[in-house]
Amino acid sequence: MSTMKAAVARAFRQPLSIEDVPIPAPGAGEVLVKIEATGVCHTDIHAIDGDWPVPPVMPLIPGHEGVGYVAAVGSGVTDLKEGDAVGIPWLHDACGQCEYCQSGWETLCERQNNSGYSVNGTYAEYAIARAAYVGHLPANPDFAALAPILCAGVTTYKGLKETEARPGEWVVISGIGGLGHVAIQYAKAMGLHVAALDVSEDKLALARSLGADVTANGAIEDVVAKVLAATGGGAHGVLVTAVSPTAFSQAIACARRRGTVALVGLPPGAFPTPIFDVVLKRITVRGSIVGTRRDLAEALAFAAEGKVRATVTVEPLDQVNAVLDRLRQGKVDGRIVLRP
Amino acid sequence: MSTMKAAVARAFRQPLSIEDVPIPAPGAGEVLVKIEATGVCHTDIHAIDGDWPVPPVMPLIPGHEGVGYVAAVGSGVTDLKEGDAVGIPWLHDACGQCEYCQSGWETLCERQNNSGYSVNGTYAEYAIARAAYVGHLPANPDFAALAPILCAGVTTYKGLKETEARPGEWVVISGIGGLGHVAIQYAKAMGLHVAALDVSEDKLALARSLGADVTANGAIEDVVAKVLAATGGGAHGVLVTAVSPTAFSQAIACARRRGTVALVGLPPGAFPTPIFDVVLKRITVRGSIVGTRRDLAEALAFAAEGKVRATVTVEPLDQVNAVLDRLRQGKVDGRIVLRP
Amino acid sequence: MSTMKAAVARAFRQPLSIEDVPIPAPGAGEVLVKIEATGVCHTDIHAIDGDWPVPPVMPLIPGHEGVGYVAAVGSGVTDLKEGDAVGIPWLHDACGQCEYCQSGWETLCERQNNSGYSVNGTYAEYAIARAAYVGHLPANPDFAALAPILCAGVTTYKGLKETEARPGEWVVISGIGGLGHVAIQYAKAMGLHVAALDVSEDKLALARSLGADVTANGAIEDVVAKVLAATGGGAHGVLVTAVSPTAFSQAIACARRRGTVALVGLPPGAFPTPIFDVVLKRITVRGSIVGTRRDLAEALAFAAEGKVRATVTVEPLDQVNAVLDRLRQGKVDGRIVLRP
Amino acid sequence: MSTMKAAVARAFRQPLSIEDVPIPAPGAGEVLVKIEATGVCHTDIHAIDGDWPVPPVMPLIPGHEGVGYVAAVGSGVTDLKEGDAVGIPWLHDACGQCEYCQSGWETLCERQNNSGYSVNGTYAEYAIARAAYVGHLPANPDFAALAPILCAGVTTYKGLKETEARPGEWVVISGIGGLGHVAIQYAKAMGLHVAALDVSEDKLALARSLGADVTANGAIEDVVAKVLAATGGGAHGVLVTAVSPTAFSQAIACARRRGTVALVGLPPGAFPTPIFDVVLKRITVRGSIVGTRRDLAEALAFAAEGKVRATVTVEPLDQVNAVLDRLRQGKVDGRIVLRP
Repeated sequence: MSTMKAAVARAFRQPLSIEDVPIPAPGAGEVLVKIEATGVCHTDIHAIDGDWPVPPVMPLIPGHEGVGYVAAVGSGVTDLKEGDAVGIPWLHDACGQCEYCQSGWETLCERQNNSGYSVNGTYAEYAIARAAYVGHLPANPDFAALAPILCAGVTTYKGLKETEARPGEWVVISGIGGLGHVAIQYAKAMGLHVAALDVSEDKLALARSLGADVTANGAIEDVVAKVLAATGGGAHGVLVTAVSPTAFSQAIACARRRGTVALVGLPPGAFPTPIFDVVLKRITVRGSIVGTRRDLAEALAFAAEGKVRATVTVEPLDQVNAVLDRLRQGKVDGRIVLRP
Repeated sequence: MSTMKAAVARAFRQPLSIEDVPIPAPGAGEVLVKIEATGVCHTDIHAIDGDWPVPPVMPLIPGHEGVGYVAAVGSGVTDLKEGDAVGIPWLHDACGQCEYCQSGWETLCERQNNSGYSVNGTYAEYAIARAAYVGHLPANPDFAALAPILCAGVTTYKGLKETEARPGEWVVISGIGGLGHVAIQYAKAMGLHVAALDVSEDKLALARSLGADVTANGAIEDVVAKVLAATGGGAHGVLVTAVSPTAFSQAIACARRRGTVALVGLPPGAFPTPIFDVVLKRITVRGSIVGTRRDLAEALAFAAEGKVRATVTVEPLDQVNAVLDRLRQGKVDGRIVLRP
Repeated sequence: MSTMKAAVARAFRQPLSIEDVPIPAPGAGEVLVKIEATGVCHTDIHAIDGDWPVPPVMPLIPGHEGVGYVAAVGSGVTDLKEGDAVGIPWLHDACGQCEYCQSGWETLCERQNNSGYSVNGTYAEYAIARAAYVGHLPANPDFAALAPILCAGVTTYKGLKETEARPGEWVVISGIGGLGHVAIQYAKAMGLHVAALDVSEDKLALARSLGADVTANGAIEDVVAKVLAATGGGAHGVLVTAVSPTAFSQAIACARRRGTVALVGLPPGAFPTPIFDVVLKRITVRGSIVGTRRDLAEALAFAAEGKVRATVTVEPLDQVNAVLDRLRQGKVDGRIVLRP
Repeated sequence: MSTMKAAVARAFRQPLSIEDVPIPAPGAGEVLVKIEATGVCHTDIHAIDGDWPVPPVMPLIPGHEGVGYVAAVGSGVTDLKEGDAVGIPWLHDACGQCEYCQSGWETLCERQNNSGYSVNGTYAEYAIARAAYVGHLPANPDFAALAPILCAGVTTYKGLKETEARPGEWVVISGIGGLGHVAIQYAKAMGLHVAALDVSEDKLALARSLGADVTANGAIEDVVAKVLAATGGGAHGVLVTAVSPTAFSQAIACARRRGTVALVGLPPGAFPTPIFDVVLKRITVRGSIVGTRRDLAEALAFAAEGKVRATVTVEPLDQVNAVLDRLRQGKVDGRIVLRP
């Protein structure tokens, strides 16, 4: 067999086409991964729509939450062998030599490649990964549940770390979608108190079932007042999973003095920052982009221990366009995972 | 003698009146300070104009960069005696019991009093200070040069610390006025490389004379491009002394990946933050408000060693209204210091 | 009523005498606390034996884990009132003005007083505390269970913080006595993995029941090998609750590269440090002494939430000498708490 | 030409023999460096004597402070080309995949190779280096002055960073030999105050000429008392360049409360640590081993700017045995550099 099914983007803002394409061969330092499951992330929509400052080159196979087994190993790969269970993250590879790579911040490498964006991704039966950049999965993995850890998981775990909130302190998690519902679990596993914000009662119910100590519904109540009261003056950390002007403004207002607001979404545009409050309260606003290999290993370890488990709906790969439509419309609870 | 000259604000947005008012008596834990010099800060204008969210109560004696000798000691004061040289900072006192006071962040205390704002300040021959909150000056102090350390000095020193830039790294200092010209000296004393930004060639010449490694004039050149080139990809820290939309936007664009932008001005309004860049580059934007007692002690120590010296113009106290006009018009080089 | 029962040390290395002594009156800034329970700590034995470099002055009422209700309030106390439930820690008070007090490290103040050492402590029906230094207990407190938090709790909580181990990482807790059995609970609440070391199978059984992931018995197995295997190369943090040459040596051998060994005991003498290993593995060895007021507030909050609960045996105050004998002989499980 | 002169160790504790050996050919990822200068470090003596726990395999070319020009480039090397000026450090290479390599701590990699120890080093006309691990020198380098930066420089620079002392604070530098005299310069460039300790008046004179604020001679005065007085209670950081029982004991006694003692020597044996003081003063004792590639880049940048310059004596390579004898006898001021 030399071809595989893949979902291919051929033009911006168009549906993907399910095609038979050649199975790629792993080059030096690469592995071929047989994809068992691949999560669907908002970033995939940005790739398909080409609405970020540097759009991808078409045609493109999207996808960067792919998990499966190593099916073939390229030359020079010593740490992986056929049959190993691995995950393919957003960070396809990085240069290894710049100041960021050398200091454990390869996510900031200016020469990085990104799965499903600058190189083909995981919406396919097989995908190529760089051996040095894959996530290592536990034995007998529950692939569908682990797929979202490769991006939603590591992104929120890293974002929580970046708030610098310590065990016993409070974090607000704003937006209880694909990222937020995982973030709540990481926060609880990290010993944090959690206040969850959303505008959907269903999502807040999910938040409570996952351990949120407090929930507040922006559609029907004053979330800032509720958070300030529950936390005794504001949260030490705020994780904004879906950056919108309202969410950003609430996030800053929910922060305790000396608190940190971590942003993990990538919306276009600019949002108004109230400098007076930020200065007077010594608030820190910090961007956070996915996570490094160490972050990913840690995020996977929490999942392997059963402390974090994504809520997933599994769909066949050929339903990808319908799935993307649901995601665009905000009609997804937890995370959707495609099976080739 | 029981009266003193003081510059008193009696109504918002009106000139101060030079009056004879009673010399206050120090209460428990307080000292009376004979003012030898007092710097003039933009914050004084906000106090006089009443344009911050919580305006002061009139009448008010402004001023919070006052230095002089202890003239009388209230009950219970053991660490100060008549004749000690001290400085009165913005932080008049704090509660001592809240989580911020207990953790060395008394500048965030919600029950703090501020000199020249919620209590009378230092535009006078005498002023009251809390013994536990004064700055301790070196012997034989050069009062005029030290006065600005009480606010401009400690504010920029703390702001630089908050960038977390380490010796050998680069900081941008945006705005070379009363704060910025002191910030350059602190940065150099801290082993940092400095790029100074302003729109005035005179101020940039001052910056160079104080040790700035690079200067860029926003009126005539592309400061972001110049900073990126000089620093090899952006500055590790950026200190914005005068937050304006342009300065804020340039500051973020000048930051290196993983860099920190520290804001020390208190403008009203909200400035647009480009979330995409902040996230992708993992930039930190952080407010910083004056400095704690430890910060002040450290800032004064640099000045006492001669590593930092404010450029000052001395004027008599009764010229205060003319001085404030010049400051409003941006016609001040360095810092103006009033002598009662 | 003007007298109270108290256990008084009148000479070094002698039994305490149960006496009727005057109830002290609270001075300015002080409160009188009616003691409901007071834990017994090894430090009390050092006080009674006078074997530390600076011994206390006799006669002395020992005790620094006292909890109870405020019975009277001295002048100037505004944050406490009669009936408030509070705890009296080792740190009776500090100067409030030194660099340590000003930076949230009052436990290092060189002018501090210590309860049950430089001032009378809590082995009595009533004790004096400084209002600004008491711990604040939750409503309807379980006094016997909370007493040990005042020293054993905050000491181990702070010690764990000082290891800088992050959620998901491993800590070794060496010694599962009065401190160690509480430390396990803090570590679990902080999201850490725990390996517990002792030489008693009973204590290790207690450790397992409190959540330890791994236990190792130094009397019958190679604890270092077991820890290295379980942790995949060593623990990120090691907390040594009872510093002995063997425990210290094992602690360093159990540390992961870049790991931190925190010491919270105060033995006399010097222990051999293997410099070669410490350097090559970049190990950090750090002393930690009780905890600050913020640490205490945090430690109490974990207990108030039910995440940490000391295992206590309650004895009447007049049994103090028998209790101290048992503690000297190492025959205490968990912590003994005296009730006046 | 296919052979080169090299100083070869053929048996432990024997003089090196100057031999003609084949010039090695660079493999994949390697470069051949024509050595212009190579510093002599105490570690070379440990290699030659085989007195560390894991001795090297003979025969061996020692040396790990080699600087020169790239003479040939192996396959796959893209970031270096013939003629580039580079330095070969102790860290020959590391695995790139372990938790330490991935987090910017490759100096802790358990699979690392070390120049002049586990692989041939730089006491030769040519040496092989891994392209990804060399130091990058400035244009027109002063090779003799730069050679010691490759080990003495980066080791002390990193050690100073590991003390966590901030600009304006005090560090003690204990031992003003090959490491210490460079450490003083780094400390001053980092904005630190320096107290230098040694037992030789000559070396202390050198220390003063390099900017030490205070010097103390352990042979003739009470260095601890002098340091405590000069620093107002102890140094924030202490760097011990030559760990001996006396130096270690003094280092701990010179540390301020909350201070950090960094150890950068690798002596065999164990030194007594006074636990009581370490705990009560919350002292941190930390090992530090050379420095990472980022540390090396930073250390070289200070030297390239002229802020740090090793005091060197240049000798021909064939004098290596006489040089090593002088080093064993402690008769070296600054650093000796060999020229092939």
